[in-house]
Amino acid sequence: MSASKTNRGRFFEDFRIDETIAHATPRTVGEGERALYIALTGSRFALPGSDEFARRLGLPAAPLDDMLVFNLIFGRSVPDVSLNAIANLGYADGRFGAAVYPGDTLSAHSRVIGLKENSNRETGVVYLRTTGLNQRGETILDYVRWVMVRKRERAAPSPDPLVPKLPDVVASDALTLPAGLDLSGYDAGLAGSPFYWDDYAVGERIDHVEGMTIEESCHMTATRLYQNSARVHFNQHAEKDGRFARRIVYGGHVISLARALSFNGLASAFRIAAINGGRHLNPCFAGDTVYAWSQVMEKHDLPGRDKVGALRLRTYAAKDHPCGDFPTGGADVLLEFDYLAILPRR
Amino acid sequence: MSASKTNRGRFFEDFRIDETIAHATPRTVGEGERALYIALTGSRFALPGSDEFARRLGLPAAPLDDMLVFNLIFGRSVPDVSLNAIANLGYADGRFGAAVYPGDTLSAHSRVIGLKENSNRETGVVYLRTTGLNQRGETILDYVRWVMVRKRERAAPSPDPLVPKLPDVVASDALTLPAGLDLSGYDAGLAGSPFYWDDYAVGERIDHVEGMTIEESCHMTATRLYQNSARVHFNQHAEKDGRFARRIVYGGHVISLARALSFNGLASAFRIAAINGGRHLNPCFAGDTVYAWSQVMEKHDLPGRDKVGALRLRTYAAKDHPCGDFPTGGADVLLEFDYLAILPRR
Amino acid sequence: MSASKTNRGRFFEDFRIDETIAHATPRTVGEGERALYIALTGSRFALPGSDEFARRLGLPAAPLDDMLVFNLIFGRSVPDVSLNAIANLGYADGRFGAAVYPGDTLSAHSRVIGLKENSNRETGVVYLRTTGLNQRGETILDYVRWVMVRKRERAAPSPDPLVPKLPDVVASDALTLPAGLDLSGYDAGLAGSPFYWDDYAVGERIDHVEGMTIEESCHMTATRLYQNSARVHFNQHAEKDGRFARRIVYGGHVISLARALSFNGLASAFRIAAINGGRHLNPCFAGDTVYAWSQVMEKHDLPGRDKVGALRLRTYAAKDHPCGDFPTGGADVLLEFDYLAILPRR
Repeated sequence: MSASKTNRGRFFEDFRIDETIAHATPRTVGEGERALYIALTGSRFALPGSDEFARRLGLPAAPLDDMLVFNLIFGRSVPDVSLNAIANLGYADGRFGAAVYPGDTLSAHSRVIGLKENSNRETGVVYLRTTGLNQRGETILDYVRWVMVRKRERAAPSPDPLVPKLPDVVASDALTLPAGLDLSGYDAGLAGSPFYWDDYAVGERIDHVEGMTIEESCHMTATRLYQNSARVHFNQHAEKDGRFARRIVYGGHVISLARALSFNGLASAFRIAAINGGRHLNPCFAGDTVYAWSQVMEKHDLPGRDKVGALRLRTYAAKDHPCGDFPTGGADVLLEFDYLAILPRR
Repeated sequence: MSASKTNRGRFFEDFRIDETIAHATPRTVGEGERALYIALTGSRFALPGSDEFARRLGLPAAPLDDMLVFNLIFGRSVPDVSLNAIANLGYADGRFGAAVYPGDTLSAHSRVIGLKENSNRETGVVYLRTTGLNQRGETILDYVRWVMVRKRERAAPSPDPLVPKLPDVVASDALTLPAGLDLSGYDAGLAGSPFYWDDYAVGERIDHVEGMTIEESCHMTATRLYQNSARVHFNQHAEKDGRFARRIVYGGHVISLARALSFNGLASAFRIAAINGGRHLNPCFAGDTVYAWSQVMEKHDLPGRDKVGALRLRTYAAKDHPCGDFPTGGADVLLEFDYLAILPRR
Repeated sequence: MSASKTNRGRFFEDFRIDETIAHATPRTVGEGERALYIALTGSRFALPGSDEFARRLGLPAAPLDDMLVFNLIFGRSVPDVSLNAIANLGYADGRFGAAVYPGDTLSAHSRVIGLKENSNRETGVVYLRTTGLNQRGETILDYVRWVMVRKRERAAPSPDPLVPKLPDVVASDALTLPAGLDLSGYDAGLAGSPFYWDDYAVGERIDHVEGMTIEESCHMTATRLYQNSARVHFNQHAEKDGRFARRIVYGGHVISLARALSFNGLASAFRIAAINGGRHLNPCFAGDTVYAWSQVMEKHDLPGRDKVGALRLRTYAAKDHPCGDFPTGGADVLLEFDYLAILPRR
């Protein structure tokens, strides 16, 4: 009788193309989330940390950090999508919408947009588009992810394979800027960098220099903050018998650390507007020290905007490997994260 | 001279029947406590996490989590009651009153309602009724606990033994529901469970499946959040020579984890209305992974209410022991917690 | 090209006498910082924790804890001042100004007031006066610190040595009390101590009794909360090859723990008004248990104030060393911190 009350997570054969899954646990976010995000990642970006800085840019208050929003929306989807996931394979076509302010309530749903069973017939890949909304129904974030999920029974019938076509890069003319944004009051000194969009060159590589060591308590606290309940992050008693014999750090925490480290070199990249793609190349564990570096991939004007421009950046995170040699692969590279960031123009 | 300024805690002979002890350090609670509680326990209940969900239920905002309130009130009493406690033996007759909202200031006092020296004459049991109030003087929580406390001097005279008579179960017709509660806007999907009060059967057992590993930093941070200053939770230098050679996890943190884990199977139990009884059966330490299961003990109508009902639930927490076998005793069972929860009716 | 975007910190020869450095990353503080500070230090002072207690004292709300403010202002200065610091040598002449309330935005700048190269020509001492401001431009804190900083090149020319003259003790008639402060509603029971300013005697020593063990996660989370990015606190991969082979606990966290522990004996010292001097005598590491004791050095009337007085206190923190023997030196004394605290008078 108990099994009937308990969610043990969906298996591959439980997903149907075009099905929409409404995720539970709407979440009001505020000053507590802002302070905790800073305390768990060390982020120093001025916009999500200062109401005054935000008002200078025409916004009503400091919006929540973009990656905090990403992780909160991702967290909503975990109990429905990835409780039985083996691996979170990638992200693409992510767009941030309305800025999130303290007092907003976030909710999320996901639509199944692709299914492909693996040849071993024991697992399959599920593609979903997850949409995060605020309490007014405005989209705050929309992205695709794909995960490898176990089948409940090997013999379950295989769905027709459908792999969605996804863009390599989100079109820069489709980006949403926070309502009211006006750069006339931008203060480079307060932001922490003398460099504007104009000062970055395509191909340029930036070593973010510092490293952050991850403790079990830190990554678990961050992941619980997002209400991401995937068991691999929390349960040492079970994981001691798992593939790595230990808990795995949630990949979104690694993205957040890489973004926080990127302040040193990219402090003026005040807004992440789109996620082109992201992949977790190796698992991360407590005790690892995360370093990061970034490359400028493209530069984009924004239509009708002469005070801001977009950089397409690719940030890599590596463990126990200072990034002065700009690593892109190998056993110690954790993350490749390709995104569009907004910077002020001169 | 220094001893005169320092509180070294009360001993058994310092308690007098009917004495009321006003506890220090009133505490304003808000968004920070809400976010930290989620981050430290992983709680996913919709009501304490979402202002919008709360407003759908007729409340002005998301109330603070019931067990957060319990732990905050308990914390007030520690410096006066249990600094020299050997063990927190049990809880009973607990009733939650007015809901607590961000901005409220909590204070507490305790009345000594029982005393019984142990036959070894070195310790005794103190029974107290602790009452938590908000800034308007409304009772937010009222409960009895009993603790074993050291005597300062073995030869101190023994008080007449008085053991209060306590109910096994709080009367369900004495429960307080949050002012304004109206279930007409209840959304089972947002709450995270399709199951209503009607769907639970007396005797039913629910394995909450997941486990949460406790780190030193996590339990200490939670316990400090409650301003519970009992030394056994914090001081490894002293505890290395103590009974267990290590710090002990505060029992209230174990209750909070068990309640958070119970979301999987009891997501619709949106409010704890009463604590019938609670016992910590074994000590918990950092490194332990907490699992939980619950049994439905009784079902109660609530007078004049057709949209909500109460379940009497008994939740057990166990360490390093998945609860599919529904353990009720043995060296790895940490907690037996018997309470009345409010659920929506169909 | 990347080096041009990355801040690698100033070296000794980059500082000029009388230069003013505006620090980046203004920070709005609020309920999240308040809750986290309590959760990370265990502070139990009533004033920063209770809006109601604050209103009884004539203030609009609970001000942020004084040492939280100190650590936040200190954190602003780190990227510009002490990224290449070998040691934070001392503090002096610190004065707290306007009280800080939730919603305030803090910013900071520092002026170079002294320079002295060391005889080895590889390092030098930089003296700075750091000023913290709120969004109205009011000074909230002003203090001097001096740090030992590496030279980039040994051969760089030596500046004329200038060592500022600093007072041993801040003049008690120059202290700022929070605007509106009125002790007529002071409640000693809520504050947690029956002792008033009148009850303390010059020379009196107070053992604060309790100890707090530091975990890596706790000190890192606190230090990130302050956006202090000094690498020695965070990067085990680099520090494993450093002087101590491990991360060093930020000294400000030790001060905060000592202040929090001092509640037991000094609960009525509701406000730190000035920092006369502070020195970190030995490094602190995760695993250390911090104890503290204080001595009353002086008692001061405050001009025009008959309901409050100042105590000059000297608090020592020691590791793995209970402070009943009042240690002032040796390998396990971490901190000597001399300050002026405000207490109610009878």
